Amino acid sequence: MLDLVLPSVEQGVLTLTFNRPDRLNAWTDEMGRRYFDLLAEAEKDPEVRVIVVTGAGRGFCAGADFQTLHAIQDGSYDSRPDPRPTTFPATIRKPVIAAVNGACAGLGMVHALVCDLVFTAAEAKWTTAFARRGLIAEYGLSWILPRLVGQAKAMDLLLSGRTFTGAEAFELGLAARSVPGEGLLAETLAYARELAVYSSPASMAVIKRQVWGDWRRSLEEAESAAVRLMAESFSRPDFAEGVASFVERRAPEFPPL
Amino acid sequence: MLDLVLPSVEQGVLTLTFNRPDRLNAWTDEMGRRYFDLLAEAEKDPEVRVIVVTGAGRGFCAGADFQTLHAIQDGSYDSRPDPRPTTFPATIRKPVIAAVNGACAGLGMVHALVCDLVFTAAEAKWTTAFARRGLIAEYGLSWILPRLVGQAKAMDLLLSGRTFTGAEAFELGLAARSVPGEGLLAETLAYARELAVYSSPASMAVIKRQVWGDWRRSLEEAESAAVRLMAESFSRPDFAEGVASFVERRAPEFPPL
Amino acid sequence: MLDLVLPSVEQGVLTLTFNRPDRLNAWTDEMGRRYFDLLAEAEKDPEVRVIVVTGAGRGFCAGADFQTLHAIQDGSYDSRPDPRPTTFPATIRKPVIAAVNGACAGLGMVHALVCDLVFTAAEAKWTTAFARRGLIAEYGLSWILPRLVGQAKAMDLLLSGRTFTGAEAFELGLAARSVPGEGLLAETLAYARELAVYSSPASMAVIKRQVWGDWRRSLEEAESAAVRLMAESFSRPDFAEGVASFVERRAPEFPPL
Repeated sequence: MLDLVLPSVEQGVLTLTFNRPDRLNAWTDEMGRRYFDLLAEAEKDPEVRVIVVTGAGRGFCAGADFQTLHAIQDGSYDSRPDPRPTTFPATIRKPVIAAVNGACAGLGMVHALVCDLVFTAAEAKWTTAFARRGLIAEYGLSWILPRLVGQAKAMDLLLSGRTFTGAEAFELGLAARSVPGEGLLAETLAYARELAVYSSPASMAVIKRQVWGDWRRSLEEAESAAVRLMAESFSRPDFAEGVASFVERRAPEFPPL
Repeated sequence: MLDLVLPSVEQGVLTLTFNRPDRLNAWTDEMGRRYFDLLAEAEKDPEVRVIVVTGAGRGFCAGADFQTLHAIQDGSYDSRPDPRPTTFPATIRKPVIAAVNGACAGLGMVHALVCDLVFTAAEAKWTTAFARRGLIAEYGLSWILPRLVGQAKAMDLLLSGRTFTGAEAFELGLAARSVPGEGLLAETLAYARELAVYSSPASMAVIKRQVWGDWRRSLEEAESAAVRLMAESFSRPDFAEGVASFVERRAPEFPPL
Repeated sequence: MLDLVLPSVEQGVLTLTFNRPDRLNAWTDEMGRRYFDLLAEAEKDPEVRVIVVTGAGRGFCAGADFQTLHAIQDGSYDSRPDPRPTTFPATIRKPVIAAVNGACAGLGMVHALVCDLVFTAAEAKWTTAFARRGLIAEYGLSWILPRLVGQAKAMDLLLSGRTFTGAEAFELGLAARSVPGEGLLAETLAYARELAVYSSPASMAVIKRQVWGDWRRSLEEAESAAVRLMAESFSRPDFAEGVASFVERRAPEFPPL
C-alpha cells in the first residue's frame, strides 16, 4: 500500500507520484489515503517547501477506479471514505503544484484542480466526463472551474464532458503552463525549486490561505485582514532577510515554516 | 403574438427564434413573455433536452424597443412586466445556448448572457450601450460580466459602452465559440445535439444548478453539497447507463428529465 | 509636499502623476495622502469626469519606499497612516484608470489594480514581489487578482513574486490594454476622453459601484438591485439626453455628476 504514491525529496521540493501506471493511476480510496497522509507529513517536514504531484507512466489520473464503480453499483460504496475532504490539498500550508503528465479525467481532474497551480503536458487529454456517466460536478469542481476559466467556459466543459488537450487547458486559463510532455517534469521542478529558494515559506503559507479564502470575503474585509497579516509579517525573520537579501543582491535564506 | 418567438424541435434540440427581424428583434414585453413561456414549456417537455436561442434576420436582439422607451418617457412603463426575473433562463433545468447571429446590444446582451453558454457570429456587433444612454448595468449584467471575463474587462465594456465584434467577445471569454456567421447555427446545433445524445439530462440539470449556485458558496460548502448530490446520482438509471455505454463503447440512451 | 502628485485637467480628464521620479515613484505616506486628497477633490469637481493615474519618469510605482521599510524595522511604522483604505479609488464615483508607464511592483501593483481599469506599457516590468520579501498579499491584492486573472494565475504571480511584462499582464487579463510605452499616455487619454464625452457621469458612477459591489451579491440580489437602479435612472436628464442624442446621431451633452 505504501507503493501507491511514491515520495521523493530534492532541494526542498517533494515530488509525489501516483503509482498505479497499469490503470492510468485510476483513483482508489487506498491511494487517496496514502496521498493525503504524505501531504500531511510534508506539511510538518521542515525539509519540504513545495510539493509537486504527478503520475507514473502515461496518465496523471484517469478518474475513479472500476473497483469504486462496482462498489457503488452493489451498494457497498462509502462516499466519504476519508474524513479529509477532497479539497484537502488547498488547506496544506505549502504550495501544491500538479504536473499533469497525461490522462486527467473526472475525479482525476478534481484532484489536479484543488492543487494551487497546474502545469500540464500540451498533449495530455483532459475531460470532466461526469455528465457522460450520469454523474454530477464532483467534490467542488463546480466551485473551482468557474473561478479558473470563467462561468461560460466552465459550463461548456462540465455540461459536455468533452475531451480537450493540455494546450487548450492552458488557453482556457485552467493550467498556468503548457509544456511538451517530455519537458513537463523538468519545467515544473525548476519552477518549484525557484519557489523553494526565493519565496519565503511563511509568506507562501499566508498568501495561499488568503487567495483560497478571499472568495468568501468582501474587498473591504480582505483589505482589513491583509493589514493585520502584514503587521504580523513585519515581526518575522523572513521580512528582515527578504529585504537584506534584496539590498545585498543575493539569494535569501528563509527559515523553514 | 405567438409569432414573436418561433419554436422548432429536432433531435432533442429546441430552437427558439426571436422573430421581429424588421426591428433587429428589439425586445418587447410581449416577445419576452412568449420567450419565457416557451422556456417553461420546454422544461417540462420530455422531447426537449437542450435549448438554442437565436434571432431571425440580421440581428440577435438590438435592445429595448422604442415602444418601451416611449412608455418610460411618458411614465407608463412597468419595469417588472413579467413576474419572472430576466435571469429566468438560468433557472431552467435544461441547458440554454445563445447563438448570437448579429447585433446584440443592451438588454439583448443581458438576454444572451443569462443563457448558460454563448456561441457568436465572429462579425456580430456587441455593445452594453447602457452608459451611452444614461442607463445602468441592467438586470444582473454587472454580476455576470465580471464572472465571464474578469473585473477589469467588464469595467471596460460597461463604462465605455463601446462596440466590439463577436471575435473579440470570444477572446474576452464572453463567448464559448466564435464562428463565421454563415456557419453559426449549424455549429451551435451540432454542439447542442451532442449534449442531447451524450450528456445525461439529469446530470446537466444538476450541474447547471451547481455552477450558477456555487458563486455564493464557500469551497467547503460546495464540496459538501457535491458529495450529497453525487450520492443521489448513484441511484439514478443515468449512472448505470453512463457506465454501461462507456464500457460497451456505444452511445448512451439516457432517460428524459 | 503638493508636488508629490501633479494634477492636470483637460477636456474632462484629470491626470494625476506620481512625482518622485528619482525613486521610481516609490510609495510614501505623504505621496499617498496627497494622491487620495486629489481623488477626493476630483470626485466633487464638476469639471472632472474621468481620472487617469500615471508616474513621472521611468516608473509607475516601485513599491514602498525605503523610509517605510526603515520605519518598519525600527518599529516606528504605522500600518494605517491614513484612515482611508488602500482601496479608496474603488469608492470614488468617477472612473479611475491607471496608465502603468514602467516599473509596477508590490504596493505599486496594489495601487494600479484598485483602479477600475489598467492600461500598461508593453515593456513595463510588473511583480507582486511580496513573497520574495517575506511579506504577504497586501491590502486586498489576494481578493482582486483572482477576480482579474483567475485563481491559478493569481497563485502563480503571488507565490512566485516573479517579474512579468506589461504584454504578459494583458495576456493574463490583468490589464485592459497593452501599448508600446511611447504611445501609452496618448492612448489612455483618448479612451478617457471618450468616456468623458460619450458616457453619462451618473451612469458611470452607478455602474462602477455595481461592478465592485456585485461580487458579494447573489445573481438574484444583483438583478433586483439593478431593477431599482434602472427605475431611478429613468428620471435623470441623462436618460432623455442619451436617447435623444442617439436618435439625432450627435454627441450627447450629459450634465456633470
